[in-house]
Amino acid sequence: MILVTNRKEKVKETEDILGFPIEQVNLNIPEIQSLDVVEVSTDKAKKAYAQLKEPLIVDDTSLCINALNGLPGTFITWFVSQLGTEGIIKCVESGSSRKAQAITCISYADAEGKIFSFLGTVSGKIAFDPLGEGFGYDSIFIPCGYTKTFGELTKEEKNIISMRSIALNKFKNFLKSEK
Amino acid sequence: MILVTNRKEKVKETEDILGFPIEQVNLNIPEIQSLDVVEVSTDKAKKAYAQLKEPLIVDDTSLCINALNGLPGTFITWFVSQLGTEGIIKCVESGSSRKAQAITCISYADAEGKIFSFLGTVSGKIAFDPLGEGFGYDSIFIPCGYTKTFGELTKEEKNIISMRSIALNKFKNFLKSEK
Repeated sequence: MILVTNRKEKVKETEDILGFPIEQVNLNIPEIQSLDVVEVSTDKAKKAYAQLKEPLIVDDTSLCINALNGLPGTFITWFVSQLGTEGIIKCVESGSSRKAQAITCISYADAEGKIFSFLGTVSGKIAFDPLGEGFGYDSIFIPCGYTKTFGELTKEEKNIISMRSIALNKFKNFLKSEK
Repeated sequence: MILVTNRKEKVKETEDILGFPIEQVNLNIPEIQSLDVVEVSTDKAKKAYAQLKEPLIVDDTSLCINALNGLPGTFITWFVSQLGTEGIIKCVESGSSRKAQAITCISYADAEGKIFSFLGTVSGKIAFDPLGEGFGYDSIFIPCGYTKTFGELTKEEKNIISMRSIALNKFKNFLKSEK
């Protein structure tokens, strides 16, 4: 199966959860503007399948902040690139809540190009300061039940509870049920 | 010529500036995620031409706020829908500047599908409170040299100085030069 992504580190995590080898392909598909992560991810899977004509998975992640009425959502990459994590914290402070939901959608195109989508959601809150390492907003997202940001957890700790692993495990169960 | 838009009020303004009749077609083309308004508009023109195979224009508008390092940019529609104009003002107040640039890109697909793009830019600032009527962020954008928001100006006053009319006039000159 193909994983369409430009982030190499996703390959091993995906292989570990799914339990079979994954081939990485970087296609640079422009994402559509929508606040619906399933819509963005499904569109990407359709366009990737149109090019590759093989079973594949893509993913998209959304960070919905309550104080920003669901923004940045699927536009999180642009918020991080333009405002940085500290700029996002400042925007959150204009509201009354620090609650947020991080959502990953895995979309699978089967051999015939039929698309199936799987969601993983982690509730949490936005930190007062960026702490730890990691990709994107990892350093400012504290998952519920924890006192550390995703950026402060080890990669292994994060992968166990992440929205991506929740979505991948749903996909794994789907594949089992299809057999 | 076709104007691809779902906003009927754009038709008369376009006809008034260009000086010939325009046919409105609503295609609902998903916009791509990019902070480059020319890229978003060009992509829309290509997709519209692929469906219609006729000369057409599309447009896209971006509001780049200095305090937000260029955001919301092409994502302005989502900021207005999720935060409202008052929410945008709150975000601006986390920064040190109220300056902003409103940019419209008109993209023209000619009879062969070749794309030409024309930019109109209006510099201004974000108001302290929403004032006046109008579409989107009209009520919070004060153009340079004015003390009123776009929303407080009459439609005629706004159309004379708007980024859309600047871009349309550039396009009009291009059409003349092609004859």
